[in-house]
Amino acid sequence: MTTQLLPFASDYMEGAHPKILQRLTEVNRMPMLGYGADAISETARTKIWAACQCPEADVYFLVGGTQTNATVIDALLASYQGVVAADTGHISLHEAGAIEFGGHKVLTLPHTDGKLRPEDVDAYLTAFEADGNRDHMVMPGMVYISHPTEYGTLYTAEELRRLHAICQAHKLPLFLDGARLAYALACPENDVSLPLIAACCDAFYIGGTKCGTLFGEAVVFPKKNCAPHFFTIMKQHGALLAKGWLLGLQFDALFTDHLYEQIGEAAITAADAIRKALHAYGYRLFFETPTNQIFVIIPNEQLDRLTKKVSYSFWEPYDENHTVIRLATSWATTPEETQQLLTVLAETAH
Amino acid sequence: MTTQLLPFASDYMEGAHPKILQRLTEVNRMPMLGYGADAISETARTKIWAACQCPEADVYFLVGGTQTNATVIDALLASYQGVVAADTGHISLHEAGAIEFGGHKVLTLPHTDGKLRPEDVDAYLTAFEADGNRDHMVMPGMVYISHPTEYGTLYTAEELRRLHAICQAHKLPLFLDGARLAYALACPENDVSLPLIAACCDAFYIGGTKCGTLFGEAVVFPKKNCAPHFFTIMKQHGALLAKGWLLGLQFDALFTDHLYEQIGEAAITAADAIRKALHAYGYRLFFETPTNQIFVIIPNEQLDRLTKKVSYSFWEPYDENHTVIRLATSWATTPEETQQLLTVLAETAH
Amino acid sequence: MTTQLLPFASDYMEGAHPKILQRLTEVNRMPMLGYGADAISETARTKIWAACQCPEADVYFLVGGTQTNATVIDALLASYQGVVAADTGHISLHEAGAIEFGGHKVLTLPHTDGKLRPEDVDAYLTAFEADGNRDHMVMPGMVYISHPTEYGTLYTAEELRRLHAICQAHKLPLFLDGARLAYALACPENDVSLPLIAACCDAFYIGGTKCGTLFGEAVVFPKKNCAPHFFTIMKQHGALLAKGWLLGLQFDALFTDHLYEQIGEAAITAADAIRKALHAYGYRLFFETPTNQIFVIIPNEQLDRLTKKVSYSFWEPYDENHTVIRLATSWATTPEETQQLLTVLAETAH
Amino acid sequence: MTTQLLPFASDYMEGAHPKILQRLTEVNRMPMLGYGADAISETARTKIWAACQCPEADVYFLVGGTQTNATVIDALLASYQGVVAADTGHISLHEAGAIEFGGHKVLTLPHTDGKLRPEDVDAYLTAFEADGNRDHMVMPGMVYISHPTEYGTLYTAEELRRLHAICQAHKLPLFLDGARLAYALACPENDVSLPLIAACCDAFYIGGTKCGTLFGEAVVFPKKNCAPHFFTIMKQHGALLAKGWLLGLQFDALFTDHLYEQIGEAAITAADAIRKALHAYGYRLFFETPTNQIFVIIPNEQLDRLTKKVSYSFWEPYDENHTVIRLATSWATTPEETQQLLTVLAETAH
Repeated sequence: MTTQLLPFASDYMEGAHPKILQRLTEVNRMPMLGYGADAISETARTKIWAACQCPEADVYFLVGGTQTNATVIDALLASYQGVVAADTGHISLHEAGAIEFGGHKVLTLPHTDGKLRPEDVDAYLTAFEADGNRDHMVMPGMVYISHPTEYGTLYTAEELRRLHAICQAHKLPLFLDGARLAYALACPENDVSLPLIAACCDAFYIGGTKCGTLFGEAVVFPKKNCAPHFFTIMKQHGALLAKGWLLGLQFDALFTDHLYEQIGEAAITAADAIRKALHAYGYRLFFETPTNQIFVIIPNEQLDRLTKKVSYSFWEPYDENHTVIRLATSWATTPEETQQLLTVLAETAH
Repeated sequence: MTTQLLPFASDYMEGAHPKILQRLTEVNRMPMLGYGADAISETARTKIWAACQCPEADVYFLVGGTQTNATVIDALLASYQGVVAADTGHISLHEAGAIEFGGHKVLTLPHTDGKLRPEDVDAYLTAFEADGNRDHMVMPGMVYISHPTEYGTLYTAEELRRLHAICQAHKLPLFLDGARLAYALACPENDVSLPLIAACCDAFYIGGTKCGTLFGEAVVFPKKNCAPHFFTIMKQHGALLAKGWLLGLQFDALFTDHLYEQIGEAAITAADAIRKALHAYGYRLFFETPTNQIFVIIPNEQLDRLTKKVSYSFWEPYDENHTVIRLATSWATTPEETQQLLTVLAETAH
Repeated sequence: MTTQLLPFASDYMEGAHPKILQRLTEVNRMPMLGYGADAISETARTKIWAACQCPEADVYFLVGGTQTNATVIDALLASYQGVVAADTGHISLHEAGAIEFGGHKVLTLPHTDGKLRPEDVDAYLTAFEADGNRDHMVMPGMVYISHPTEYGTLYTAEELRRLHAICQAHKLPLFLDGARLAYALACPENDVSLPLIAACCDAFYIGGTKCGTLFGEAVVFPKKNCAPHFFTIMKQHGALLAKGWLLGLQFDALFTDHLYEQIGEAAITAADAIRKALHAYGYRLFFETPTNQIFVIIPNEQLDRLTKKVSYSFWEPYDENHTVIRLATSWATTPEETQQLLTVLAETAH
Repeated sequence: MTTQLLPFASDYMEGAHPKILQRLTEVNRMPMLGYGADAISETARTKIWAACQCPEADVYFLVGGTQTNATVIDALLASYQGVVAADTGHISLHEAGAIEFGGHKVLTLPHTDGKLRPEDVDAYLTAFEADGNRDHMVMPGMVYISHPTEYGTLYTAEELRRLHAICQAHKLPLFLDGARLAYALACPENDVSLPLIAACCDAFYIGGTKCGTLFGEAVVFPKKNCAPHFFTIMKQHGALLAKGWLLGLQFDALFTDHLYEQIGEAAITAADAIRKALHAYGYRLFFETPTNQIFVIIPNEQLDRLTKKVSYSFWEPYDENHTVIRLATSWATTPEETQQLLTVLAETAH
């Protein structure tokens, strides 16, 4: 019999928050309209409008993150345009060419702590516009950021406002990937709210898959008709769920009684406790992050011991004797599991 | 308060068969490996191997039908090839250009009762090969059929064998879309079994969305490595579910204790009762189908009365005074609902 | 030693009209700006403006017909739209999937003598707009016609005006493929002029490859900025010639001293003589065409004799004993060659 | 009246080498088979086989460089693969997304003097194969280099052999872009011959547009059937010229009596004289290149004077007071023009 490892490998290992499953069980036999035209999806949209303070928004529910990024980017770009992203962005590295499959280049800029610096974006766009060869190059057609980033870091409200202003000045839409948005919103140092995101971005998505749903991402276009015929574009991308109400139901639950906030807070509380313990036990962090992902540089012999007790993610080799691993908390992390992890970390440290 | 309409509009109006939901509830908190690498998905694959008698098959789980068709077709075609399909095929008409989005033309042949006739396929392929201009044309790279078809009709085992032989002779893969396969397998007149499909097709999928799951389609490549790097192709198409075990779990349930067969049988029993009543009450059928979809030509004044009591699908206008509608049964249809529908049909007929 | 066959196989067998070659020789050593920014291309644009009476038009020079169709269609369509064309249209059959390569479906309508009937287009667009499933289908985004058609037939001015009105009513651009336009303009029964085309179409191209140039097609967008960033789209499609002045020079020559008209007239004079002879000698035509392509149904034993003396195009088998062939005249057809062909046809007829 | 500037802006400002134009004039009226099936194209292929010592090669003629790169890359890659290139490569920066239009990512590696270092390629491919996330990433499917590079630098025979060995070890094709190949082959320090390229590469092209033809690039696949159905792929990409013999004729001329070598030698002789003068007059070079492109860092006030007499290419700003310009020689550069340039450079230097 295999011993159960402590589950800190990722934030998408378990099913859904119990309230979601309960809701699903309740309505399972009720006949619904297909493709998101049902009443529950409509209610979910209303709640998202309220949470984002954008009552005119177009809201669509898609299944997964890569799919959402590819579909939104293809909807917002002209055929000859590309998307500006950090070289560490998910769309640059880990989406198997889904953006290029739609015919679009990812125009990468160097990152700073996983983030695009507003001044770098401005300089790039300004240089492009001044380049005598620009008509022979891929025109930047939008800017993509994620919050939190791939590295678990956060944009400040000031940075987001500046990116917005720069995009406006260059007449480009700004798109925010919120696959792990709940974990950003719950961080004490985060000063970026849903309404601010809605005010600064032309499109963004509220992540479900990694934040408590079985699956699902809610795309928000704060300004009506920003992406005409997005429904058809979803279908064309294979991103239209027949039983769309499954998605609406999950987001309806997330935005009822502040569940989305609670999910984030529980995960951040756990992550903070782990971070504190890591510092206390003398572990080195790869970089400081305030969200639910923690990147640790660990000596390989310690890692061998950890591997027997904890499920984590391998990130990258650090040097011959050390490895970078990722520990992730989530809505599903229990206080007991966190406590057990602290114990293991204490033992392993010596 | 709105009166509940009798739910015969489609076979994807309700959630999942109770056994699936129960199973999901049981494992909801268990940490699983992502992207289909989990143990439940592995078990589901084993059961599908057994049911199809192809123990070497590559089996993948995708989310929806359009997505599955687009991904499999793109995986099997070279960039310069197209897919041969009936002009009534789902991929020809109702997938919003998902196939063309991948760069491939749908090469349509006229249908007979919604089906491709083997001799037409043979004649087309033979003519292509003999055409002096063939290098300026889209090369047929595979043949697509669905069972049941868009019209709810069925291929015979003999037709399937002949299509297989023709595809072999012309060195093209044959792909069968089984979005509603459960309803074919349960028909008394059907002589096409899963092992026969596996023996005759290079790829096929066993539909879940319309046959009892929340969502999900199981793609089977009976011969190992027929579609190299299909996992990456899924990701590129946005068709890779993070919590892949959700799909595995549902197919594991469908292929446990003959649930997939039971689901089909219940729906066909209901459909047969409805067909019998329609004939008895003097309704005209648009065409005769043995599966769970029934197409009725109905006078418009009768339709007005029906509309108040039954949820159905509008199909197309028949003439000025008649309309074609579709009634669909499913795993979720109860004997009570069927009985109530028969009563309404009897009343409406007069 | 092989006997020279009489060259009636196609209208792209020879190089360029001597005036073009002479002009090329004159400027061969002069340094020019690249990519169409040169002065000769500018002059050519001015002459095309004058000929089409559209002094605001955007004019671009591309290399070949398939390339031009694919590039213009991709420029005018949104990613989720398709192009409406006759099922016999070049883009439907003989462009090797170049349109689908750009992600767009060709939405075919049945032809009448190779033409789209305005009422069919209207009915199709009206039905699409009324279809409850339209969001699941490929949205028609433009209408494609060619003049002359693949069958060498001609639209009337009245038909073109009606197609224009229908496209306007449905808010779709109309695109005319003029690969063989010179041969249409020169027909006595043609009442479609360049200014009328410019008034009725949102985009069209004036064919060079088949009408006297070495290669080249001149794309005209009568309304300024109808296709933003078309230069970049050309580059993206591999359709931007480094030495763009080669194209400008050839069109400058074609639109100097009415050369484009003369080329058409010589070919039509020859074709008319051949048609007259065919009728006189009892040949059957496959269909009546007024342009430079003649389709003849010929008994196979006669064809064997013809094959020894004339180079023609095989079109399709007619029945067991007859074949359809195409004879084409061009700018390069000499009166002597036409006379020799008449002699051969007379001999072969018996 | 405008004074004629000395033409050193690029190597594609003039038409064709006189021998090509003469040949074209001779055969202009001869009827030819279309799409490259003519006898002259066949002869040209034979001569290229001989020059490359690869008598089995598949040889195709395309029109331009971007088109050729996009078509060859699309032909050699599977749909889910990308092409490895230097970050300065033409396909990375200046092809307007033509590669992504075909659905493929350009996987960039940092350059060294415009070149890919073999060890970097090996390290990248090895790391990819070892990456646990590789199935979520774009798989490298081929390696792209150019000779000379964008910066006018040259691979050594040793480097080419090592790249070949690395590609073989990782089972990837190696593709060499030879847009300016004549100028590489003519350099004294070049030790890479056509036969060596044919031995080391799976595909390469011999540039015509910048090396003496009106237009045209000759693609060589040294091993037969390396790119099945390449003819159809060309058509699909809009890269198939109706009068393909125009391309064959030009390459036939280039490979007759060593014309391709002579063209290169004349340009290098001129470039060497200019380089010598630049050094003698105290100009600073941006980097040392042995081919026909010379990159000079020039004080802005000197540039103002030069601008009045010489046509050059702006490359990039160097600092506030200096600019990088490119001077290019070509087959069309006359000794008189070179001499005049030297005089201007001498005057401008002071």
